Amino acid sequence: MLEKFKRDRFAMHTGIEIVEFSPGYAKTKLEVKENHLNAVDIVQGGAIFTLADFAFAVAGNQADDEVLIAVEIHISYLKPTKAGTLFAEAREVSRTRNLAYFEIPVTNENDVLVAKFCGRAFVQKAVK
Amino acid sequence: MLEKFKRDRFAMHTGIEIVEFSPGYAKTKLEVKENHLNAVDIVQGGAIFTLADFAFAVAGNQADDEVLIAVEIHISYLKPTKAGTLFAEAREVSRTRNLAYFEIPVTNENDVLVAKFCGRAFVQKAVK
Amino acid sequence: MLEKFKRDRFAMHTGIEIVEFSPGYAKTKLEVKENHLNAVDIVQGGAIFTLADFAFAVAGNQADDEVLIAVEIHISYLKPTKAGTLFAEAREVSRTRNLAYFEIPVTNENDVLVAKFCGRAFVQKAVK
Amino acid sequence: MLEKFKRDRFAMHTGIEIVEFSPGYAKTKLEVKENHLNAVDIVQGGAIFTLADFAFAVAGNQADDEVLIAVEIHISYLKPTKAGTLFAEAREVSRTRNLAYFEIPVTNENDVLVAKFCGRAFVQKAVK
Repeated sequence: MLEKFKRDRFAMHTGIEIVEFSPGYAKTKLEVKENHLNAVDIVQGGAIFTLADFAFAVAGNQADDEVLIAVEIHISYLKPTKAGTLFAEAREVSRTRNLAYFEIPVTNENDVLVAKFCGRAFVQKAVK
Repeated sequence: MLEKFKRDRFAMHTGIEIVEFSPGYAKTKLEVKENHLNAVDIVQGGAIFTLADFAFAVAGNQADDEVLIAVEIHISYLKPTKAGTLFAEAREVSRTRNLAYFEIPVTNENDVLVAKFCGRAFVQKAVK
Repeated sequence: MLEKFKRDRFAMHTGIEIVEFSPGYAKTKLEVKENHLNAVDIVQGGAIFTLADFAFAVAGNQADDEVLIAVEIHISYLKPTKAGTLFAEAREVSRTRNLAYFEIPVTNENDVLVAKFCGRAFVQKAVK
Repeated sequence: MLEKFKRDRFAMHTGIEIVEFSPGYAKTKLEVKENHLNAVDIVQGGAIFTLADFAFAVAGNQADDEVLIAVEIHISYLKPTKAGTLFAEAREVSRTRNLAYFEIPVTNENDVLVAKFCGRAFVQKAVK
């Protein structure tokens, strides 16, 4: 299954790694490098978003018979970051037949909350 | 000023270009390539987010005496995209002394809405 | 159909009126009274939210064979209001088989934007 | 201080009670009555929003020298509710000089999550 997730070429291009995953859960990691910074030398919001979004995708897509499509995402940026390592930890908080809701805190290596990502996905039955 | 915006290394690394900008406005562009795709071959949400977030940054940061820091962002994904060219157009919709609100539709080359990004920024007075 | 919408007892209890509606569109109105104010004498966020949410419900529920269920809503408060009349105008911006996205600006009697409400609804086929 | 919070006339008009509060925390309660229902007989989204928003206000406004103004709120509706008692529990998750971020789960009397409200407030220094 790890091979399937690594086909996320944008996550790979961004330098994100999968730390661990189990059904409804995933943890991802980003070592901040210069190419993650914005014009004022803090980590670009899109890099943090992608870290969390990839955890969302890995946590949600471990079943063979469905695909989760993210439809609504809200992200709160709580602490600007300049360097170090960031982690995103996705957990399924609610699930119905058609919709799933995940919460994904993003923390730094000192376990300080730098952003909070909340996402709703539509559950699409996979065509076999 | 264009040079300042091009210091956004994550936007550059993602392959985003600035099409045009004026105070409170910016348009950015992304030609979808393989490294923007996710594991199910549609453009990764983070790539679309970054396209819009960069338009947000360019639209909001054209004054010398302040820096806009994105604090809350909401994105709705409306149409999955596999290829082509995406555009994000940021416009300042509301502004007070401390906060600015931008709306940023993301469209494809046929002018179909693929996502809508709404963002609130805190206005920080620049230290000289 | 107007009778159906007026069965929204919380909207009626809040004092909200329907100004007009057509498929995918609705305009609602609230004359600010003392019972809409919060502890610091500005219109409570929940009253403004309800005004917009009711426009969302009226705009989205004009077909007989489906019910729209709001699942994700984002609201930005842009200008505190103390008195006067508020209007919410809901428009369907995007629609697929399962999901609908509406944008609903809330303005005062001088046409100043006081809040922006964006909502995603799940489209449930009605049981007959 | 309880008297100050009870000046929130819209929360009182909606029938919301304060269960408890301490700095950065508040719990509110709503016994669902007919006037909280929408046209399809489930609790109107605005009533749930107001329950959480009032917890947000009480949790955030216990200091004398500042006022928190809600600027961005996101709410996810997870389980439609027809009757019973709802509770909202607000906790401050992050705080800087100018901005505060709260998370507020809304649960029913069986402790099932029915909605999740996340809000960002601007911290305004009170004029004395």
